Amino acid sequence: MKYLAVDVGGTSTRAVIVEDDGTCIGYGTAGSGNPTSFDGATAVSAIAAAMHAATKQARSTPTDLAAATVGIAGTVGHTGRHLLKDLVDAGLPEPLKLEPDLLVAFLSGSLAADGYALVAGTGAAAVRIRGGRIEATSDGLGWLVGDAGSGFWIGRRVVRAAASALDSRGPSTSLVELVLATLGLSRTTERSPSDGRLLALRDAVEAVYRLRPVELARFAPLAFEAESTGDDVAGRLVASASDALAATLAAVVVPEIAGPLVLSGSILSQQASVARRVVRTFRSTDDGPAVITVSDGLVGAVVLVLRHGGVRVDDTVLARVRTTLAALR
Amino acid sequence: MKYLAVDVGGTSTRAVIVEDDGTCIGYGTAGSGNPTSFDGATAVSAIAAAMHAATKQARSTPTDLAAATVGIAGTVGHTGRHLLKDLVDAGLPEPLKLEPDLLVAFLSGSLAADGYALVAGTGAAAVRIRGGRIEATSDGLGWLVGDAGSGFWIGRRVVRAAASALDSRGPSTSLVELVLATLGLSRTTERSPSDGRLLALRDAVEAVYRLRPVELARFAPLAFEAESTGDDVAGRLVASASDALAATLAAVVVPEIAGPLVLSGSILSQQASVARRVVRTFRSTDDGPAVITVSDGLVGAVVLVLRHGGVRVDDTVLARVRTTLAALR
Repeated sequence: MKYLAVDVGGTSTRAVIVEDDGTCIGYGTAGSGNPTSFDGATAVSAIAAAMHAATKQARSTPTDLAAATVGIAGTVGHTGRHLLKDLVDAGLPEPLKLEPDLLVAFLSGSLAADGYALVAGTGAAAVRIRGGRIEATSDGLGWLVGDAGSGFWIGRRVVRAAASALDSRGPSTSLVELVLATLGLSRTTERSPSDGRLLALRDAVEAVYRLRPVELARFAPLAFEAESTGDDVAGRLVASASDALAATLAAVVVPEIAGPLVLSGSILSQQASVARRVVRTFRSTDDGPAVITVSDGLVGAVVLVLRHGGVRVDDTVLARVRTTLAALR
Repeated sequence: MKYLAVDVGGTSTRAVIVEDDGTCIGYGTAGSGNPTSFDGATAVSAIAAAMHAATKQARSTPTDLAAATVGIAGTVGHTGRHLLKDLVDAGLPEPLKLEPDLLVAFLSGSLAADGYALVAGTGAAAVRIRGGRIEATSDGLGWLVGDAGSGFWIGRRVVRAAASALDSRGPSTSLVELVLATLGLSRTTERSPSDGRLLALRDAVEAVYRLRPVELARFAPLAFEAESTGDDVAGRLVASASDALAATLAAVVVPEIAGPLVLSGSILSQQASVARRVVRTFRSTDDGPAVITVSDGLVGAVVLVLRHGGVRVDDTVLARVRTTLAALR
């Protein structure tokens, strides 16, 4: 039997074809399924594209697949039922299950029945898991209302700090050069004759408004780049993001569940300084509960689709999933 | 001769018909011309609707009008030329001039050749005026990149503070009840069985995402309401907004121009605590440069259209504009 597991993120969508024993035989990716500001059609086409890439590598077809599980944010209730139907119409195999992105993130790092997951990619959220199910959720409220400490949250502040410095309202920062370079602009001193504004600022602002808001997450890496060279503005920004993520996690922690804690998403898996600060607030000593960092939730989606198919996923099967998936990526 | 003057704001658009001697004979309003996230078609229809309401009250028609001036944000260059053509197509009289919203705001409060204007409504910006023209501009960069201390800026923080408190991530605040009431929701303790989230929070978040982002400005008044009852979260929010507006103003102030300073927009004209804090950073003593507060830029648009028509606008004419306009509003 072959199964399909998909992990939908704010920036990219990943799919894998897995056999009964945990051997991954095909892997594919596609663009954002954008779970934070949800667009059903975008998600469906990204998921279908990732599936087709994975089945192609597996020399298989969707009709060969015995079941599918998709890890995705914001799919409870009405939206989820619509999405399920649209995915089946787009050719995904049945039975098809949608699972919360935070649950697949947790299972990517741990098979424990209880614990916590904190995810910070384009968006940010934390959950408490008890008995294999999500018992409590914190944040994950999207770019406009929540997602404190996420890639969008950081990227928006990077752009605003650069604009504020160019505008002489805020402190100078190396983020100015980094943001202008990312936009393909250079820092000139020419000003508009009509309102005295720097043309470089005007051009940068116009370029940013041509993006969809969530795309501001692409500026987040500039904060870490500037922080590493000692930039004060960037240093405060990274510290604030870490504090926000620590607060998001703290909101779901209860004394009777010590851990483990699974960290996922680009901000936590690629930025060691943020992960270190968050972990320090979670456990006071190094021999505290386990903290496991994963790059995304794909392994967890595989665990769930195998379980749905009746496979008992133990450490041997999990190790095989990890090894064979790593070889495909 | 009769003239048309229009002032376009982020929340509403105002038009007035004025005679040669400064007597205002018709007044009309329409919805947002949304200068911060600019939508040409919306602006054109709002401006035309306000004009028709004003000509109707004046028992006149657009073809009777000798000239028109429209005060509006973000209309430099390409966008401005398109807008001019679209407005003429929509029936506005020629010659038609577009003027910066910050300039008409200044002229609503002062006929001085030099000075400053600080506007904080849906958006926020400051300018330095020299010789009747804008010499320098600060902020006014729109809801995503700038507008620090504006109605949108405050309203977004109000919503985020309420969401954070409901989510147990942030401090408790009376903004929770105020935001839920504004959205027509009540604070219940029921939680979603699938992720443990408060249903009141989930419903509030969904309601906010149904708004256009700039509409979050409608939550700004809640900050002042909560501050007045001693709410700490709201108090810090209002203080931050005042600091941001003071920094925006400070970026355009030069020693050789002492004032006057004209304050405009709902945040500065209706919230005395914000205006007081900003003024305190602008002048250290009460006998410093004049500070004049106006509700919007309509009087300034009248001043400019009369000047364009060859009328010499002195204090007598200005007083007549103010008195007759006040009687119409």
